[in-house]
Amino acid sequence: MARTLEFYFDYGSPYSYLADTQVEAIAKRTGATLARKPMLLGGVFKSTGNHSPAELPQKSKWSGFDMPLWARHYGVPFQRNPFFPVNTLALMRGAAAAQLDGVFDRYHPAVFRAMWVEGRNLNDIKEVAAVLTAAGLDAQRFGNRIQEQDVKDRLKATTDEAVARGVFGAPTSFVDGQMFFGNDRLPFVELALKGALP
Amino acid sequence: MARTLEFYFDYGSPYSYLADTQVEAIAKRTGATLARKPMLLGGVFKSTGNHSPAELPQKSKWSGFDMPLWARHYGVPFQRNPFFPVNTLALMRGAAAAQLDGVFDRYHPAVFRAMWVEGRNLNDIKEVAAVLTAAGLDAQRFGNRIQEQDVKDRLKATTDEAVARGVFGAPTSFVDGQMFFGNDRLPFVELALKGALP
Repeated sequence: MARTLEFYFDYGSPYSYLADTQVEAIAKRTGATLARKPMLLGGVFKSTGNHSPAELPQKSKWSGFDMPLWARHYGVPFQRNPFFPVNTLALMRGAAAAQLDGVFDRYHPAVFRAMWVEGRNLNDIKEVAAVLTAAGLDAQRFGNRIQEQDVKDRLKATTDEAVARGVFGAPTSFVDGQMFFGNDRLPFVELALKGALP
Repeated sequence: MARTLEFYFDYGSPYSYLADTQVEAIAKRTGATLARKPMLLGGVFKSTGNHSPAELPQKSKWSGFDMPLWARHYGVPFQRNPFFPVNTLALMRGAAAAQLDGVFDRYHPAVFRAMWVEGRNLNDIKEVAAVLTAAGLDAQRFGNRIQEQDVKDRLKATTDEAVARGVFGAPTSFVDGQMFFGNDRLPFVELALKGALP
């Protein structure tokens, strides 16, 4: 039976972006089904008592070297977002709405790209609207949808589910119920999908 | 000119142990000189405001899966130390003494092995003495040396040097002045030693 790669992420997490550039290829190479699961990382931090690694100045400084190194390793574009940290509640609710409404395939790459390739200010609702419009989406409709209860409930449910499964940061992958934390564990994720973990 | 792999570690850090099992082979493959630098991780945490990842229960639980996975990946023995966390001040001073006194090659593998393979209680000075004696070292002499100023100064100097260079956790490697944090960055360390970073 084909395995599923469950991928929990938040658009505000640069390592989520980096990993996200790889997960489709990993799923393809292993014959797995990819299930992207938008969660609110701030909610995960609050529930677990964890903090953003960016809060430690020394770690943040090192990440300024490490993140572009991964981007070059993967051969993908990347820049740190100058407006970081971004409150991603609206963006993550938008991802939940996009999944509910069947437009996630357009929404998802547009938001990650705007955040970590184009470095746009996604704290600004007008910028978000411009990004969605450019992706062929109805920005006004998204503005309404993210205030509706089914959308709020879906994001909260996925975030609670993540915490209940032991998630404490992003990105986090699951294969056969086994958790893998971080972009840097994707090689193990791929082995797990092949049933070839050491 | 041959490069140097500078490797900052603490015996209380399981990922330091895992990385330590690899650094000699990496140096050999790349023709690099290996410089192991014992530092006091507790001192690094205090200076930087960082905390042990083991303090977050969810992360600690996940590490219980991740650490043995790395050990199997590397093909090295490993078990979590049941007496963790261990106050490593005496052990790290011992490493400084061993380097000053020319017996580090015997001291270093014996302590890492006792901690992360044999799971011994290295908070107990008698256990430490037994480990050193079994390694052919003079335990009594070590007990005296770690109270001497040159040894204390050396550990403090290396720890301060690490913090000044941006170290915030263990293990941390440097190649040509560039920092790489974590056991999981060793593939990048090896590329850097080859002059082949992307």
